[in-house]
Amino acid sequence: MAGAVRESAAFDLVAAQQGLDAQPFSRLVQARITEFGGGAATLEIDIREELLQQHGFVHGGVLSYAADNTLTFAAATALGPAIVTGGFSIQYLRPARGRTLRARAEVVQAGRRQAVCRCDLTMIDEAGEERVCAVAQGTALPLNAPADGQG
Amino acid sequence: MAGAVRESAAFDLVAAQQGLDAQPFSRLVQARITEFGGGAATLEIDIREELLQQHGFVHGGVLSYAADNTLTFAAATALGPAIVTGGFSIQYLRPARGRTLRARAEVVQAGRRQAVCRCDLTMIDEAGEERVCAVAQGTALPLNAPADGQG
Amino acid sequence: MAGAVRESAAFDLVAAQQGLDAQPFSRLVQARITEFGGGAATLEIDIREELLQQHGFVHGGVLSYAADNTLTFAAATALGPAIVTGGFSIQYLRPARGRTLRARAEVVQAGRRQAVCRCDLTMIDEAGEERVCAVAQGTALPLNAPADGQG
Amino acid sequence: MAGAVRESAAFDLVAAQQGLDAQPFSRLVQARITEFGGGAATLEIDIREELLQQHGFVHGGVLSYAADNTLTFAAATALGPAIVTGGFSIQYLRPARGRTLRARAEVVQAGRRQAVCRCDLTMIDEAGEERVCAVAQGTALPLNAPADGQG
Repeated sequence: MAGAVRESAAFDLVAAQQGLDAQPFSRLVQARITEFGGGAATLEIDIREELLQQHGFVHGGVLSYAADNTLTFAAATALGPAIVTGGFSIQYLRPARGRTLRARAEVVQAGRRQAVCRCDLTMIDEAGEERVCAVAQGTALPLNAPADGQG
Repeated sequence: MAGAVRESAAFDLVAAQQGLDAQPFSRLVQARITEFGGGAATLEIDIREELLQQHGFVHGGVLSYAADNTLTFAAATALGPAIVTGGFSIQYLRPARGRTLRARAEVVQAGRRQAVCRCDLTMIDEAGEERVCAVAQGTALPLNAPADGQG
Repeated sequence: MAGAVRESAAFDLVAAQQGLDAQPFSRLVQARITEFGGGAATLEIDIREELLQQHGFVHGGVLSYAADNTLTFAAATALGPAIVTGGFSIQYLRPARGRTLRARAEVVQAGRRQAVCRCDLTMIDEAGEERVCAVAQGTALPLNAPADGQG
Repeated sequence: MAGAVRESAAFDLVAAQQGLDAQPFSRLVQARITEFGGGAATLEIDIREELLQQHGFVHGGVLSYAADNTLTFAAATALGPAIVTGGFSIQYLRPARGRTLRARAEVVQAGRRQAVCRCDLTMIDEAGEERVCAVAQGTALPLNAPADGQG
């Protein structure tokens, strides 16, 4: 829905990575942003032992962190950086294992009051094969909402 | 809904903390479990700098990790430890700041096919005052589902 | 969270029922509002054959209608009538059967940008016993958002 | 994800419409099924006055009914007809107006314990133009779950 997307050339991939690096928790998780713009954002996390749960799969909390952050970065391509995450819903599809977690979110619709985004979470294995392991949808709200919005 | 809850005395708070400690990501976050049993579970995380986002509030990913894990531990009090998280929905209410994050989840209903739980996420400040900052609801599914369940 | 609730005495139960009656679809379903105020709302629907699904239980679409509307009416007790439903999440707990469907929603938090509400959906049987059959949580957004809200 | 979909030739579009017609509430709403198979289902509803809310838009409860039912029909193409809806999350994007509501759902993943589906809800206007007005994602659970499933 590119027509609904108001992009700022200044707020590009480099700035997005700086925004991500300004989050201490994203540095703890060691997330990187690999796509930012045009109503979409992609976050990647290389999987290491401390991101796992007790059975050796990626912890659901890592997946939900990635969904939360990627949905919000995608929304920022439409609404600008002054936004807050409203909330999201995530469904886990299968145990997540592999080399790299990739979360890709797209803006479905961005209005004056909120942006609604969807996110696919995939695991990439050693052979480079990608397999979806969770899906999410959520909203972000502008910090400075319109005075008399119609939506 | 205590009647729907099948508790195992052996899987108690100590075992629950061991289960949590068996999750490398929960050790990274430094979560502890302070209640486990009777259809409810409580998780606490002392807030330190590396759990924050860029504005000094607790990162949404920490809140969603806590919701995910607490919902599943609450479900485990009803379904036993052999479960997987099905998914959840979380809504953020206000910026989360304070000394300690507390997530408390309760089983709403546990059947043969899934348990549905709700979770309140609160921040406790230096004075000990508690304030809700997010709410979630989600499901967990038994690994060994019934052969001919009716729900 | 009564402190966050801005009630209007003029927008009371009678006005709420008029608001409900102004919705043709609510007249088709034959919903009535039995509580409105103080951050909460209750909707009731007497069950008749045309509200069922193929196995004789109340159709999930009737439950989701009730969740949608009750969440929004509860939000209206805090935000006033000029709101739109943002969305919601619903989990079905068991087949819904009985004489009357009751949906009761409460505001968890109401800010300048959105209100977050939770809803319990119960079925009341011939003996007057009430049993929860679904739970929901959702948001409503003010039509006229603040010019420079902080949440 | 056609590989995950187990289709039954006998449970085709005609049978799906019969299944829909067996739901009294779907007859009340006057829904029809226009696609069923291969991991997807489409439901359509011609808009008439009694499906509206107080401002002349399609009532959110009609949209949530359509999401609920279409997600479950899509899941049935993968899991067979013996399923129950687990729950879903819906986000409203804009006021829904037009001639016909179309809900199209696709299976994202179908395992032994649940199927996860996504749904787009669009309005088709008099000129035949289609515009998304809501998105949903949800789950359906098999009535007869596996005895020792691994997901």
